[in-house]
Amino acid sequence: MPPDPFFSGNGLDRADLVRSDPAALAMLAGRDDALELVWADGLPVIGDDGRLQWQAAVRPELFLGLDGDSPRFCAQQRQVGDVRAAFATVGLLEPAEAPIYAAALSLAGWHSRHGFCANCGQASEAVRGGWSRHCPACSAEHFPRVDPVVIMLAEHDGDLLLGRQPHYPPNRYSALAGFVEVGETLEAAVARELFEEAGIRIAEVTYVASQPWPFPSSLMIGCTARSLGRDLTVDKTELDDARWFTRVEVVAALSGDPDAPFLPPPKTAIARTLLEHWLA
Amino acid sequence: MPPDPFFSGNGLDRADLVRSDPAALAMLAGRDDALELVWADGLPVIGDDGRLQWQAAVRPELFLGLDGDSPRFCAQQRQVGDVRAAFATVGLLEPAEAPIYAAALSLAGWHSRHGFCANCGQASEAVRGGWSRHCPACSAEHFPRVDPVVIMLAEHDGDLLLGRQPHYPPNRYSALAGFVEVGETLEAAVARELFEEAGIRIAEVTYVASQPWPFPSSLMIGCTARSLGRDLTVDKTELDDARWFTRVEVVAALSGDPDAPFLPPPKTAIARTLLEHWLA
Repeated sequence: MPPDPFFSGNGLDRADLVRSDPAALAMLAGRDDALELVWADGLPVIGDDGRLQWQAAVRPELFLGLDGDSPRFCAQQRQVGDVRAAFATVGLLEPAEAPIYAAALSLAGWHSRHGFCANCGQASEAVRGGWSRHCPACSAEHFPRVDPVVIMLAEHDGDLLLGRQPHYPPNRYSALAGFVEVGETLEAAVARELFEEAGIRIAEVTYVASQPWPFPSSLMIGCTARSLGRDLTVDKTELDDARWFTRVEVVAALSGDPDAPFLPPPKTAIARTLLEHWLA
Repeated sequence: MPPDPFFSGNGLDRADLVRSDPAALAMLAGRDDALELVWADGLPVIGDDGRLQWQAAVRPELFLGLDGDSPRFCAQQRQVGDVRAAFATVGLLEPAEAPIYAAALSLAGWHSRHGFCANCGQASEAVRGGWSRHCPACSAEHFPRVDPVVIMLAEHDGDLLLGRQPHYPPNRYSALAGFVEVGETLEAAVARELFEEAGIRIAEVTYVASQPWPFPSSLMIGCTARSLGRDLTVDKTELDDARWFTRVEVVAALSGDPDAPFLPPPKTAIARTLLEHWLA
């Protein structure tokens, strides 16, 4: 069984055929049981029960999908909250609610930053229940971004390569990661990032699991790779440090041992899933 | 060993540290051995030898990377050629050149369609050797799009589900595919697309290989899935047809048997790689 990172799961039924049917969309938006996600401070509100909060649909602008038969919408947001605020609370979410939070945050955030046509500069308008923006001036159609990121554990002789970014809490180490670029396979991106950030060459890449990461719209693609050597050249513009940890050290970190040599990534991060999968 | 789709491989050394160093970029662009990709009709020119063509760098606007020590650039293109024209010739490329073609076509195409800031509508400018666009009005930074797409073979009881899109040549059948959406894992996207397009529910998703697909900037993520049943409900707005084929029928199609019940996808498509991998 592949592991289940946080934010994974099916979320709502996206009912995508409805998006291209304005009459069906209007009918759903007008129903008495149509609900709209509650936001505060630019983020979906997480209740004390760990669940998202819904209210009667007042501005059913973005169609999130159906929960059973119940239509779920989201209003457009002028601005979405910053990543730091979201990180502070997202771990409180029930896992089953997390993919809905991710879809709503990424979609509303994309609209808030893409009000104009990149092709001609004129104001564009949300269409298809918010799953696209149309430019009335040049007719270009723009779709919400999903930015693929590779995130990977490199292994050498039973040890694991982890690194820390400058903004991490003290002593946290995690998997290295980077955006996939145009013209690259996932495997080429893993090899490039590990060489750029740590100076290692690798021989094999194995896919493990994926995770939507709505800060703002990444698709984390988790892999393991086998390093051909253990000499590191750390890119200090990207990382504070990168080093090899033994299996015993990783076990200590994941079990919360106060003497562990590093603090692991939080349970919401696919890097944590990769570490748990590697140990298993 | 994972299979190698067309457009995969390492291409040029992207030397990404250079991108954030304007002086280093200018030095590379000014070198006597700096080369620029030759374009015609909005596409990189493919020579009779199957290789890309290069000339002395006149407009070194987009930094593609290093070939050994030799800096390689691309000029910005007002417009990139249409997909049909590209398909007609791309199969003539030497496989080792294909990832360079893919990166150049996606990158130049992105600039040609993203001259304005989506956040505020003002003209933006290429920075970092063309790997980003900066908005002087609102300071937003925009990065080239890479759009992840899942493409998958569903299997049931030894048979394979294939479909045909309306624009395919007569009798061609191929893997089903669709864009990954915000808030989705790869696995959820595979399940959603197979249910939307063919009405099947699945139990397992296995990653096989990935491929950059520069028409305009997709990242094809190839998977197999196990279908829980064989009753199909084909979405006729997306597909002309979808049906199950036996292993014997797939073998006949891939071996070019004139009596085969369908024509397979071309060798440039990862769908072909998935079929070959499945048979092996």
